[in-house]
Amino acid sequence: MFFASDNSGPVADQVWQALAQANIGYKHGYGADDVNAKVIEKIRTLFEAPEAAVYLVPTGTAANALALATMTNPWETVFCTPMAHINVDECNAPEFYTGGAKLTLVGVTDKMTPADLKAAIEREEDRGVHGPQRGPVSLTQITEDGRVYTLDELRALTDVAKSYNLSVHLDGARFANAVVALGCTPAEMTWKVGVDVVCFGGTKNGLLGVEAVILFDRNKAMEFEFRRKRAGHLFSKHRYLSAQMLAYLTDDLWLDLATRSNASAARLADGFEANANVEFLYRPDGNLMFVFMPRWLHQKAFAAGAHYYTWGDVENGPADEMIKARFVCDWSVSHETIDAFLDIIR
Amino acid sequence: MFFASDNSGPVADQVWQALAQANIGYKHGYGADDVNAKVIEKIRTLFEAPEAAVYLVPTGTAANALALATMTNPWETVFCTPMAHINVDECNAPEFYTGGAKLTLVGVTDKMTPADLKAAIEREEDRGVHGPQRGPVSLTQITEDGRVYTLDELRALTDVAKSYNLSVHLDGARFANAVVALGCTPAEMTWKVGVDVVCFGGTKNGLLGVEAVILFDRNKAMEFEFRRKRAGHLFSKHRYLSAQMLAYLTDDLWLDLATRSNASAARLADGFEANANVEFLYRPDGNLMFVFMPRWLHQKAFAAGAHYYTWGDVENGPADEMIKARFVCDWSVSHETIDAFLDIIR
Amino acid sequence: MFFASDNSGPVADQVWQALAQANIGYKHGYGADDVNAKVIEKIRTLFEAPEAAVYLVPTGTAANALALATMTNPWETVFCTPMAHINVDECNAPEFYTGGAKLTLVGVTDKMTPADLKAAIEREEDRGVHGPQRGPVSLTQITEDGRVYTLDELRALTDVAKSYNLSVHLDGARFANAVVALGCTPAEMTWKVGVDVVCFGGTKNGLLGVEAVILFDRNKAMEFEFRRKRAGHLFSKHRYLSAQMLAYLTDDLWLDLATRSNASAARLADGFEANANVEFLYRPDGNLMFVFMPRWLHQKAFAAGAHYYTWGDVENGPADEMIKARFVCDWSVSHETIDAFLDIIR
Amino acid sequence: MFFASDNSGPVADQVWQALAQANIGYKHGYGADDVNAKVIEKIRTLFEAPEAAVYLVPTGTAANALALATMTNPWETVFCTPMAHINVDECNAPEFYTGGAKLTLVGVTDKMTPADLKAAIEREEDRGVHGPQRGPVSLTQITEDGRVYTLDELRALTDVAKSYNLSVHLDGARFANAVVALGCTPAEMTWKVGVDVVCFGGTKNGLLGVEAVILFDRNKAMEFEFRRKRAGHLFSKHRYLSAQMLAYLTDDLWLDLATRSNASAARLADGFEANANVEFLYRPDGNLMFVFMPRWLHQKAFAAGAHYYTWGDVENGPADEMIKARFVCDWSVSHETIDAFLDIIR
Repeated sequence: MFFASDNSGPVADQVWQALAQANIGYKHGYGADDVNAKVIEKIRTLFEAPEAAVYLVPTGTAANALALATMTNPWETVFCTPMAHINVDECNAPEFYTGGAKLTLVGVTDKMTPADLKAAIEREEDRGVHGPQRGPVSLTQITEDGRVYTLDELRALTDVAKSYNLSVHLDGARFANAVVALGCTPAEMTWKVGVDVVCFGGTKNGLLGVEAVILFDRNKAMEFEFRRKRAGHLFSKHRYLSAQMLAYLTDDLWLDLATRSNASAARLADGFEANANVEFLYRPDGNLMFVFMPRWLHQKAFAAGAHYYTWGDVENGPADEMIKARFVCDWSVSHETIDAFLDIIR
Repeated sequence: MFFASDNSGPVADQVWQALAQANIGYKHGYGADDVNAKVIEKIRTLFEAPEAAVYLVPTGTAANALALATMTNPWETVFCTPMAHINVDECNAPEFYTGGAKLTLVGVTDKMTPADLKAAIEREEDRGVHGPQRGPVSLTQITEDGRVYTLDELRALTDVAKSYNLSVHLDGARFANAVVALGCTPAEMTWKVGVDVVCFGGTKNGLLGVEAVILFDRNKAMEFEFRRKRAGHLFSKHRYLSAQMLAYLTDDLWLDLATRSNASAARLADGFEANANVEFLYRPDGNLMFVFMPRWLHQKAFAAGAHYYTWGDVENGPADEMIKARFVCDWSVSHETIDAFLDIIR
Repeated sequence: MFFASDNSGPVADQVWQALAQANIGYKHGYGADDVNAKVIEKIRTLFEAPEAAVYLVPTGTAANALALATMTNPWETVFCTPMAHINVDECNAPEFYTGGAKLTLVGVTDKMTPADLKAAIEREEDRGVHGPQRGPVSLTQITEDGRVYTLDELRALTDVAKSYNLSVHLDGARFANAVVALGCTPAEMTWKVGVDVVCFGGTKNGLLGVEAVILFDRNKAMEFEFRRKRAGHLFSKHRYLSAQMLAYLTDDLWLDLATRSNASAARLADGFEANANVEFLYRPDGNLMFVFMPRWLHQKAFAAGAHYYTWGDVENGPADEMIKARFVCDWSVSHETIDAFLDIIR
Repeated sequence: MFFASDNSGPVADQVWQALAQANIGYKHGYGADDVNAKVIEKIRTLFEAPEAAVYLVPTGTAANALALATMTNPWETVFCTPMAHINVDECNAPEFYTGGAKLTLVGVTDKMTPADLKAAIEREEDRGVHGPQRGPVSLTQITEDGRVYTLDELRALTDVAKSYNLSVHLDGARFANAVVALGCTPAEMTWKVGVDVVCFGGTKNGLLGVEAVILFDRNKAMEFEFRRKRAGHLFSKHRYLSAQMLAYLTDDLWLDLATRSNASAARLADGFEANANVEFLYRPDGNLMFVFMPRWLHQKAFAAGAHYYTWGDVENGPADEMIKARFVCDWSVSHETIDAFLDIIR
């Protein structure tokens, strides 16, 4: 009963097969392999963006930080929510990679509204050279709290950004889960609603560790390449990144895996909903959710071997006190596991 | 009628005399001049800190950014208010100088409370290596909105900082105005209430451009020196910085000038208070204040030749709409000027 | 006939088996997996360094840059040869990661002598705060030109470093090949001869992409962890790094693979030596070598399908002009391939 | 008898008068003062560059580092001589300000030749994204060893730079001395021979501390402004920088002062030449020179109260051993002083 993270589950079988295939014989390094050429082609097709620049990096933090560094001058500020992974979970990677840009926090939750964004941009008022200059807007889809922006919501946010001539970055660590939740195409969720650069995640959805950074405007492609190299994120044996991504894109594996994890999360959420002791932070749209459960129930769950993150002391305190917890379903969790867990806390 | 900034007024006479004196003959460069030795000695005596490391730099941004860079690891975050000069008026200088540290905003005004600070520190919860690590607390005295922390308030804030083992930086761009307002000694307002590093401002109080950075703990003194040099802030003809500061510290000139500007601001504030058309943001403690005045009154004031900053369109809009303005008294403003201005807006 | 790079060959079978094994079920992320615990234990044992801090990163550039950033203040300079990978092949990664430190070039070849090193250190004379400050010495073993420092040579260099109180970094991208060439232990080639931090390479020797950074002094271990995280080099699914390294260290696989590639290179070198048309830059100690061959011979080799790097225009020019080339043997190259190639150029 | 540095002498009288003049009344801060407008106009006229962007900063290191940061991407390398101030005397300021660019050393003396430059650029061969990318060429005029590039020499160097599409930076800390030595115009020594950005020094030539950075191409003007601000080099009371520079440019004061210091150096050099015990490194073109004198002669000079820098132990060693020394004439040194000194060492 492992609901701690979509980083904790295994890698899909198809990925191993692709890696084994890529392992045969000699291949040019540093992305000049034939597998990578196929990956680039497939991503361009998938995103209906024949000119896009496409790069693979091993982690989500690398993808976000390199993308933002390419989009942001050091004297600018990036607009993101206070919950954004780039704000709370990357140990100042954006500040490091940009050479000292700032993050301006928008709204108070995981999801910003156009009004929030406009207010934050206006707050960074025009102070000549004195204040931080306005830089890109960074959105996370699905959000860190498990919600999905609708296409209209995305468009409304990018409209605000564009009205100030700001570019838009999408942290798509759980991109696939969002596409499945929305039933849309990758293009519809990105450049068609005004996203300029997207981090297309694979690691949380069944790969060993690969994210694609897609720049719809090629203008800064070489800059990205230099930044990736000097950050140590250009793999010499790049074929093993390419192979993972190729498998991911083949026969819709990426959608398949996300469909599974979303369905598992929905099943789990249904069970939570039927349980009078559990309250949602938000009903999940994708594969993760935050809930509140009383201490005694957490104790019962942990005693039975469940794994998930909590915010608060589960051991000591009033039995009825509600304690926040995060549940994430990775692609491999079985319905039996979910049902078993729901039984325990029923 | 110039109330725009304490950067706009002239330099005090004593400073010119000291500069002329320092100009005679040859002097060692880079701070090895005899004038600088006197400055260091005087500051140590003034602050009752015989071991303190003392360095001169030409601007407040340089002072703050170099001090914070010496106090903060790149993976840490600095706690300051949203109004802090380091946040809104230094074009990301702290992020640049620290090599990519973050600022965490505390409270919602220019003045943080211990509860605000504790909440902000707790918000940067322990996420292992994932989140920004907790770094120094930065306070501005007097604040950007013109208020003064009492000694008890300072102590309460540094107590919170120390309880988390965090160091404390004081942006003292208007240090003299605060000391005059509180009627305390420099030591009482700094290390005696738990401040570790102070930027002791001179530029806004009658000098051409000099701030002293004082490190009460010498431990990182050499690091500060390397950082200052590589930032281009070590003056070859350092004697002209030293001479300004020496004049400032001689015969209590620094207190004298601040006493004048505080008194001018009090006179101006009294006039505002007596004027039914003017509302304070806060009654000023030092030499600057924010007020709200109706549009028609601003128009009248500007037409009469007054200079000050406003937030909003003074030209167009309802005559009675209240528009925010900042008034700063520098040391040289005369009571006649203040009275003349008050007459105009009466 | 692929002699272009040890990055071009396949991954060893044992590694795939270990990855498959590590893939089973759920595992804690970010290095908290049980496989990583085994890796750390094995490396400490192997290096006879029970207190060493051990970290895995995916690329050699990441390993070097993170190690150097942890060892070097931004106002210092790193001493290395002009041929050093950190100087010519990392797109300024050390400068980026250190926050702007410098590299001072030592000697004129791939191998520095104690006299070279002493001269370079003295050249960065004591200029107070004005010049770059002396920082760590970085050695590459085996060197970028394929030579191996003897243990005495290493000791003589670290003695110079220590006499100036400088720490020593070892870029061990081909660490295994050097250990095989010298017939020594890892401890003998590192801390026993005065190396403080070593990058223990795996990528060039049969892994997909893993290097271990070993800090013999734990003092800066946490700093390394923060730097790794904010660089995006902390893998969420860390088990797949750990598993590679565990396989590498099991049953002496790392030595086995390096023994193979060294033997292949020796066989190739023997063939070159017997060929009157080929001249060595240096007779190789490990698995790579630079040679000079006439243009016509390169043309013949390429026509027959050989792959290797050349410096100069192979197509056009006098047939007899000598053109420099690099030959690298990876662990998987067969003796048949080598012999076939030697036949072609005979 | 003070020949240690042109930073050690006093400031010219006209500068004090201009400062006193600028001190009257209120002035807009941050460069919006009317004095600065005049400075910009005068520099544009002087350099025959009506579109040039002109900025004042307080130190030579700030001028160089900000100029280079604006010209250089972090993944590039700056070409300069090993003696360049930016290499040996700025504690890695260029590396810091550029965000981690590199310096590639050209030639082995203070003066590079076109062949040196071409060789260095070629040495940073095209390695795709792997190596540092070629960045600007930085020249110092007059050089750190006191020599002056002729206009033809400058042109030959910028021709090499342009042939690789590289921009050219001129460190003109002693710009005035060079113009006097060459008898040319500022335009002839800069953009007319292919210089893109020049640091026009004032500090070493009679000012308190001001350098102008002149960008002949306005394209990156705003970038420079943001960089200056976030470095803490934008002065609030900018009028005191402007006033110095205005005085400097008025009635050819800058040329006048440099003419004096060059003449003094020529007089000193003539005396050295007539002294059989003194050998030149180079016969000086401007106001500084390096010479070799026997230990006993240094001892005599120091005993008589002379001040200058030496490289070596003047106290201990063979009396006849030649020890290197640097002599600099600032604008204020009198012919009597020079003659007195020459008498002592005769």
